[in-house]
Amino acid sequence: MTLRLRLRLDLGGVRFGPGKAELLERIREGGSISAAGRDMGMSYKRAWMLVEEMNTAFRTPLVDSTRGGAHGGGARLTEAGAAVLAHYRRVVAQAERAGAQDIDAIAAMLSDIPDEK
Amino acid sequence: MTLRLRLRLDLGGVRFGPGKAELLERIREGGSISAAGRDMGMSYKRAWMLVEEMNTAFRTPLVDSTRGGAHGGGARLTEAGAAVLAHYRRVVAQAERAGAQDIDAIAAMLSDIPDEK
Repeated sequence: MTLRLRLRLDLGGVRFGPGKAELLERIREGGSISAAGRDMGMSYKRAWMLVEEMNTAFRTPLVDSTRGGAHGGGARLTEAGAAVLAHYRRVVAQAERAGAQDIDAIAAMLSDIPDEK
Repeated sequence: MTLRLRLRLDLGGVRFGPGKAELLERIREGGSISAAGRDMGMSYKRAWMLVEEMNTAFRTPLVDSTRGGAHGGGARLTEAGAAVLAHYRRVVAQAERAGAQDIDAIAAMLSDIPDEK
């Protein structure tokens, strides 16, 4: 059985967790906010709202974008965006390492139900 | 600014995070599933459903309860419940310690918006 750890930071009102991290990653890979959101099953509007929320929360925007245009504009992670994403991924990795023993102890107490996934 | 870390474990289908941990804590303190749920703003039905989900997910039930009765029954954490709660709290504490440096780095990049809380 695989245990997964989901971790969310409450940054004085703004939250940063797996969803925003994935959105940033997909924007970096695909160069488009709308496409990144679509791939995650969210609306165009929601993806933009999340990006604007992040851009406002941080001193330097995390995503640099040009809205509209012939190809619907483009987007890329800024240096700050890449840094926040890297720091977040490290927090998760460190949490998994540091908590491994206690996570294993919890796992050992689970029912032996065949994993349906 | 206070940064808070919220951490959820995906245990092969069942999730265990801040909400269930708080529910277990309140059951331990108050001896009642319904009262614990009510204090957290959830319905009687939802509180019971979460407890049953946990009891099924683990080999030994985490909460021992008697439904109904003159005083609406009582509930208490089992040894397994106390153990899971303690392990979970330790995972969170260890994650906060291990991730402190990267969390601080993220915090340092935030806008200087006065905390409204």
